[in-house]
Amino acid sequence: MTQSALVKKNPELYVFLPLLYTVWSDAVLTPTEILTIRKAIDDQKWLSAEEKKFLLSNIDPANPPSPTEVKEWLQEIQTASLNPDENASLAEIGLKLVQRKTKTAISKSLDATSVSLREIEKTLGGIGRESSYLFVPDARKTSTASQSTETTFDVAAMTRLLDGKNEAIIKRVKKVIADPEFRRIDTGDLGEYRAKVLTWCSHLATQGFGSMAYPKQYGGQGDMEGYFAVMETLSYHDLSLVVKFGVQFGLFGMSIYFLGTEKHHAKYLSDIGKLNLPGCFAMTETGHGSNVKGILTTATYNHNDKTFTIHTPTEIARKEYIGNAALHGRMATVFAKLILDGKDYGVSAFVVRIREENGRTSKGVTIKDCGRKMGLNGVDNGVIYFDNVVIPKENMLDRFASVTDDGKFQSPITSDNRRFFTMLGTLVGGRIGIPRSGLSASKTALTIAIQYGDQRRQFGPEGGSEVPILNYQTHQRRLMPLLANAYAYHFALQYLTERFMNRTEEDMQEIEALAAGLKALATWNATTTIQECREACGGKGYLSENRLDDLKNDTEIYTTFEGDNTVLLQLVAKSKLTEFKQEFSNINFFGMVNYVANQAKTSIQEKNPFIVRNTDEEHLLDPEFQLNAFIFRERSLVSSAARRLKGLIDSGMDSFDAFNECQHHLVQVGFAYIERVVLEQFIAKVAATKDEALSGTLRELCDLFALSQVEKNKGWFLENGYMEGVKTKAIRKMVDQLCAKVRKRAVPLTQAFAIPKSCLAPIIIE
Amino acid sequence: MTQSALVKKNPELYVFLPLLYTVWSDAVLTPTEILTIRKAIDDQKWLSAEEKKFLLSNIDPANPPSPTEVKEWLQEIQTASLNPDENASLAEIGLKLVQRKTKTAISKSLDATSVSLREIEKTLGGIGRESSYLFVPDARKTSTASQSTETTFDVAAMTRLLDGKNEAIIKRVKKVIADPEFRRIDTGDLGEYRAKVLTWCSHLATQGFGSMAYPKQYGGQGDMEGYFAVMETLSYHDLSLVVKFGVQFGLFGMSIYFLGTEKHHAKYLSDIGKLNLPGCFAMTETGHGSNVKGILTTATYNHNDKTFTIHTPTEIARKEYIGNAALHGRMATVFAKLILDGKDYGVSAFVVRIREENGRTSKGVTIKDCGRKMGLNGVDNGVIYFDNVVIPKENMLDRFASVTDDGKFQSPITSDNRRFFTMLGTLVGGRIGIPRSGLSASKTALTIAIQYGDQRRQFGPEGGSEVPILNYQTHQRRLMPLLANAYAYHFALQYLTERFMNRTEEDMQEIEALAAGLKALATWNATTTIQECREACGGKGYLSENRLDDLKNDTEIYTTFEGDNTVLLQLVAKSKLTEFKQEFSNINFFGMVNYVANQAKTSIQEKNPFIVRNTDEEHLLDPEFQLNAFIFRERSLVSSAARRLKGLIDSGMDSFDAFNECQHHLVQVGFAYIERVVLEQFIAKVAATKDEALSGTLRELCDLFALSQVEKNKGWFLENGYMEGVKTKAIRKMVDQLCAKVRKRAVPLTQAFAIPKSCLAPIIIE
Repeated sequence: MTQSALVKKNPELYVFLPLLYTVWSDAVLTPTEILTIRKAIDDQKWLSAEEKKFLLSNIDPANPPSPTEVKEWLQEIQTASLNPDENASLAEIGLKLVQRKTKTAISKSLDATSVSLREIEKTLGGIGRESSYLFVPDARKTSTASQSTETTFDVAAMTRLLDGKNEAIIKRVKKVIADPEFRRIDTGDLGEYRAKVLTWCSHLATQGFGSMAYPKQYGGQGDMEGYFAVMETLSYHDLSLVVKFGVQFGLFGMSIYFLGTEKHHAKYLSDIGKLNLPGCFAMTETGHGSNVKGILTTATYNHNDKTFTIHTPTEIARKEYIGNAALHGRMATVFAKLILDGKDYGVSAFVVRIREENGRTSKGVTIKDCGRKMGLNGVDNGVIYFDNVVIPKENMLDRFASVTDDGKFQSPITSDNRRFFTMLGTLVGGRIGIPRSGLSASKTALTIAIQYGDQRRQFGPEGGSEVPILNYQTHQRRLMPLLANAYAYHFALQYLTERFMNRTEEDMQEIEALAAGLKALATWNATTTIQECREACGGKGYLSENRLDDLKNDTEIYTTFEGDNTVLLQLVAKSKLTEFKQEFSNINFFGMVNYVANQAKTSIQEKNPFIVRNTDEEHLLDPEFQLNAFIFRERSLVSSAARRLKGLIDSGMDSFDAFNECQHHLVQVGFAYIERVVLEQFIAKVAATKDEALSGTLRELCDLFALSQVEKNKGWFLENGYMEGVKTKAIRKMVDQLCAKVRKRAVPLTQAFAIPKSCLAPIIIE
Repeated sequence: MTQSALVKKNPELYVFLPLLYTVWSDAVLTPTEILTIRKAIDDQKWLSAEEKKFLLSNIDPANPPSPTEVKEWLQEIQTASLNPDENASLAEIGLKLVQRKTKTAISKSLDATSVSLREIEKTLGGIGRESSYLFVPDARKTSTASQSTETTFDVAAMTRLLDGKNEAIIKRVKKVIADPEFRRIDTGDLGEYRAKVLTWCSHLATQGFGSMAYPKQYGGQGDMEGYFAVMETLSYHDLSLVVKFGVQFGLFGMSIYFLGTEKHHAKYLSDIGKLNLPGCFAMTETGHGSNVKGILTTATYNHNDKTFTIHTPTEIARKEYIGNAALHGRMATVFAKLILDGKDYGVSAFVVRIREENGRTSKGVTIKDCGRKMGLNGVDNGVIYFDNVVIPKENMLDRFASVTDDGKFQSPITSDNRRFFTMLGTLVGGRIGIPRSGLSASKTALTIAIQYGDQRRQFGPEGGSEVPILNYQTHQRRLMPLLANAYAYHFALQYLTERFMNRTEEDMQEIEALAAGLKALATWNATTTIQECREACGGKGYLSENRLDDLKNDTEIYTTFEGDNTVLLQLVAKSKLTEFKQEFSNINFFGMVNYVANQAKTSIQEKNPFIVRNTDEEHLLDPEFQLNAFIFRERSLVSSAARRLKGLIDSGMDSFDAFNECQHHLVQVGFAYIERVVLEQFIAKVAATKDEALSGTLRELCDLFALSQVEKNKGWFLENGYMEGVKTKAIRKMVDQLCAKVRKRAVPLTQAFAIPKSCLAPIIIE
């Protein structure tokens, strides 16, 4: 329309231009809306018939202006050079334009027009203001775009807080893995990768990292806690290395250490620690993974020559997925049922040679390669068959059971079952090392995704520049709670480690339950975290160079090995029920009734109508409220599970069926218990942190952890009347706000993990 | 104790043996419980002091019996040869044993003893009955163990129902991929894998599968629906092949077909369909993936020689992740901003040669290999740079925009933005093909995990054999709802395909929203499904031979490409809001108030106190109730999102910020809308199925789909007062029951997918 002679004659027509531009540039208008605009034009009495006709011709869907023409309109409007902050309506911009053209005051008729234009804009909703941004390029300021990193705490101090007393050893390991010799390799060739990982293991052994937990007299440093820190730190690097390292020095070495006695320590530990004796931990069989008690490999004692015969009776009795077996292992701790005088004494462990020094498999041993796996392809997992392999009597790891000189079975533990679980209990360290390793992988993924999200820009307001994707609410909601989880599990696993280091016999049931539960939750959290981080990095997250694929695939099996997570959580629940049972059995029947009634009373108190609807910020951010909610959930789930089980069994249901009927419920018990412990420890950590900048930041993370868990379980809290809808809605909003807060510290919070640059990804620009 | 002379003298002492065995074999008894038992023994007046002392010595924690001794007790008890069904108490077993030994009637004192023993058992809870199973090996029958497959419908008929009218083509493709030539290869070598995939593609092209959707005059069959069926069926096989195939015949070919005109069709389509002209679809840039409108590659028109110059102005403007680019592509459809007379006319598409017939990259073109990826490593993705590459004017794909002979820009669509979205709209087919491919991968994973779960046994009742893991509630809860999802998405994607095949212009907005939303939900569902299946298969699921790793890793990018899922769901929500806006704009202000009030009335009606608490099975399984719940959720979320946005904008917030503030809410709108459509279609399918055996089974799956979704969203339903806790608890229970029901048909339901055996896994035994 700008070219028209009519406009030149009457520049007041320019008042319509911004509206017309808006109609044609992008907005999707309904026929009704177009009619409204046409009517408004038609209503202007100051326009001549010819001018009206001309204007209406410019808003005729059957006869649109050309793209080039519309672009010229835009240039024309931009000459009005609006003040960026003015945020004017289309009518105001139109008036400005007329003023520029006529250089006189606005006529009365025009003023009236602009009023009717404003009316139109109102019915069009936000469109007017939206388009006005087009007329002042790059001037639009939004609060979404302006979010950015604020470093409010000393990153190095946070790192020291995380590392705690293991600071020195963590630094040493980081130095080693940053060495060029430890550069990760990009290969699809199993042989090459496995050889590299073996070399890395040797380097670590040479530096004394492998034997760290062994007693000093066998070349170690008696530092179990240090060993965990080594595993955790190595996990920033290559996870095949971590698992190979863990199989050799942890599973193999520790089984000799914990299940064997002095003679075995003296004979093997020093060589194991130096990797002079590569070995395996041959427990799992094809037919029995979770249910190790059911393994079928036999170790039959022959008193005439004082030997055991190790044998694989059927195909499903073969040892499977055994790390270090396919290529490098020479010896193996083999779990087998001890048969003596025709009696089965349950599972014991034996040291068995599987490969000679020349690398050939030993007589009677057959080994197959498990081949390519989803991840951890630097580990040579294998299948082992034993065909009547004879080993000397002293190869039985005899701490918990042995055969006497006169050929009798002997054990301080009467029950085969108890003995089995006591034996496994000594190996609980694996359930501490694995979740700590998984957590490191989560931290790496978060560092990559969060730092990338802070740099990557995509979309933005019309008329403004593109916005870092970490500023979007959905992106924050994806990543910030997971960052909070990483800190939460860090402190929880530190707590578990301390409990384990200072364990007494009475503690063991609780520590085993804690380890099993934290292993399950932390490794599932790793799976979820790395999965979200991959998605959050889009196409870049799919490229191997950015590591998320290996992090995901390598840790994938963490939810299965060292105990299938679902099975573990049932163990945890059963352990909680046993506690419950003990609580009951020390009181008589009436006592028990009182006990249940008291529980109910507590719940009713906690459910007072004020609290279930309280949405005050102060209340929601009160650690006492948060922890009470977690405790309430835990107690309710445990006691309702107990009641349900009792009810079903009392009604005549087989106990096995009753447990199956409540299995889902029991898994929830496991979650609730562990989540409560995690929150408790996080709150304690915040309280114990003196540096206010650090504690303030941790407090935000802790709030986010607590409330995002409550949000996740809001169905349960509502169902049980512990909260009302108004409160859970307020919590949802609070989670949004906490995500936005944590986003500001997110980059420094990942920097505090202090992961060596060589372990991160090229998508992050310095 | 059995060896003792005292017992030989008084065999009535045997009455205690089952209890003693139980104490020592496994049970964890508290000190109180042991005291109770000791007291009970002490109370027996018929025992001599010596006998009491002897018995008490057998229940002294400080001096336990030996493992061998306890085993002998067991053998002794087993001589009582209990009737397996008897389910006797420990006291009864003890009495039987005495009878066997004494061969006389039970004495009065002994009878009294057994009463007091029964009292003890009661306080020990279920322990008594539990141990009694030990005495009758393998006799225990539980309902958990007895669950098994019941084939209640004709599997082949279900397959026909799933395949629908594409039965013939699906069979043809299955035959091809079952051919030995299509055997999948196990290699970590990119070159080898990519070459294999190219060969497979050629075979398919030769058989006419590639050109299927193209018009007959260019060698095709004009069968778009058939093309989708080919993609879907190929997806049981190797997903690199599917993506390579999709890039060549779908993205590259269809972009020429839909964005080009007659001259391009004639010149290219036939060669593309035969794979004589391998090509790429070069849209995404390093800097712009989701926000394609922001791409920076330029196509500058030069009128003097009637050419375009294609150029990559900056590093982030390079084309990235381009399939077929690293090795095989010769031509590419390149998306670039058209610059004419210094004006930017937005994104158009151009055909550009990138590699000569001799395989060398064309002048001005630089290509890099994207290298190893998380999955799809049989596809040669690359990065492309253009350094002022000149192409003739006719290489512009000019269906929606062109340059006239006199060098002017011309388009039937005025707005650059509209034109861009219209152009993209024609490519919506990709958003149908990808979710259908992802669904096939889900079906493969489910077939593997469910059939394995039906065979794999682990754990079992004490004294019974091990139980198939698919009989465990947690396992059913993991897999059965996902099986229901697979059927649900199958019918929903069939519906989407039909809508697409019969589209009119008015339908397009709805179809685009449906496709975007179903793409997002179905691909996320694939990620979740395959992840669960991997975990459900434990260690076996980690071995590459069992395919779950590739299924997971290959489909991983499905949630990112063809539109990032989170971005897509926001588009869907905005589309719903536009509908909303249209509903409003045809009524005046008072009309709108009435409208909102009516909405509220509906809600209140639906929230009548009887219904929110109704837990009748009939009600919960009523499709009308289920669908109403989904509709209520959808409408509430849409209208509350609209109100929130309006409120924020009215209060002066920038609209971009307002949308960001509601982003999480908008994503929920997308979910709710698509889930409603999926349920609606599933219900319609059940209703339309005549065969009652089939419809009955589908009805169970549909109920499970509906109620497990409600359970997932129960927090929302409770929060909004649509259900009360008593109802959501009943739904949880109903989901448990439906899982157990569906478990019985689960194996045949996966068999109905009729996936070629060569595409499944060795862990499944025939």
